[in-house]
Amino acid sequence: MSSANTMTKKPADAVVVVPTTIHVCITCRRPTDPDSFPRPGGLLARATANAAIGTNIAVRRVRCLANCNRGLSAAIACERRWTYVFGDLDPAQDAAALVEGARLLAAATDGLMPWRDRPAALKRGLIARVPLWDHEEAE
Amino acid sequence: MSSANTMTKKPADAVVVVPTTIHVCITCRRPTDPDSFPRPGGLLARATANAAIGTNIAVRRVRCLANCNRGLSAAIACERRWTYVFGDLDPAQDAAALVEGARLLAAATDGLMPWRDRPAALKRGLIARVPLWDHEEAE
Repeated sequence: MSSANTMTKKPADAVVVVPTTIHVCITCRRPTDPDSFPRPGGLLARATANAAIGTNIAVRRVRCLANCNRGLSAAIACERRWTYVFGDLDPAQDAAALVEGARLLAAATDGLMPWRDRPAALKRGLIARVPLWDHEEAE
Repeated sequence: MSSANTMTKKPADAVVVVPTTIHVCITCRRPTDPDSFPRPGGLLARATANAAIGTNIAVRRVRCLANCNRGLSAAIACERRWTYVFGDLDPAQDAAALVEGARLLAAATDGLMPWRDRPAALKRGLIARVPLWDHEEAE
């Protein structure tokens, strides 16, 4: 789970290299999961790391994204883009969706993850999106 | 609502200057609010800007933090720190709490907003916290 860059192709086939990370919460559990370790968030982290093999997306284990009521949780972050938090994730099913979301964000020229092409798990599980500290919108 | 730095004092009285922003969602409304404009998120943005007068905290209006189920919403972001998303905010009551949260985050030497001193609105309204793309935790 090392730091890496993501190489994506824009429509014009120009190669874009954007450092991209999926932070997976390893302390997450769903309301029906037992309060013991290892937590299912760890399974999601492992599945996501496997799904990211062959990409340049970094997958990192993180302790708590504070989305405890709607775990499992992960955040997708790229350099100089908005960060997206997702919840209600399934460790057995949603790893590939996270990798696809990371690809979409890395390729976004406006800094935002496009809604239309987003996997279903990242539509229904959207918790929040946050801009960088220096983000400023036109009025 | 311009960009600015936050000057805070550490216990040792050293001055720390950290660029700090409160992003307030101006499209937010609570489930009981009418679906018309201006939205109460705009009122919260104005109240927060007033509460931040005399500080170096920037208050910026943003369109949608995707926390629509638990609005009103705001995010507190500092350079090189975790970003915090809050919901269930009240435009008449919680502006000062956002400014105090921004102060706490700016002063945090570990990059995390301390829980204990956090205003009640920022405890009960915590939606998520997200690390930077290059955050990496020790195992």
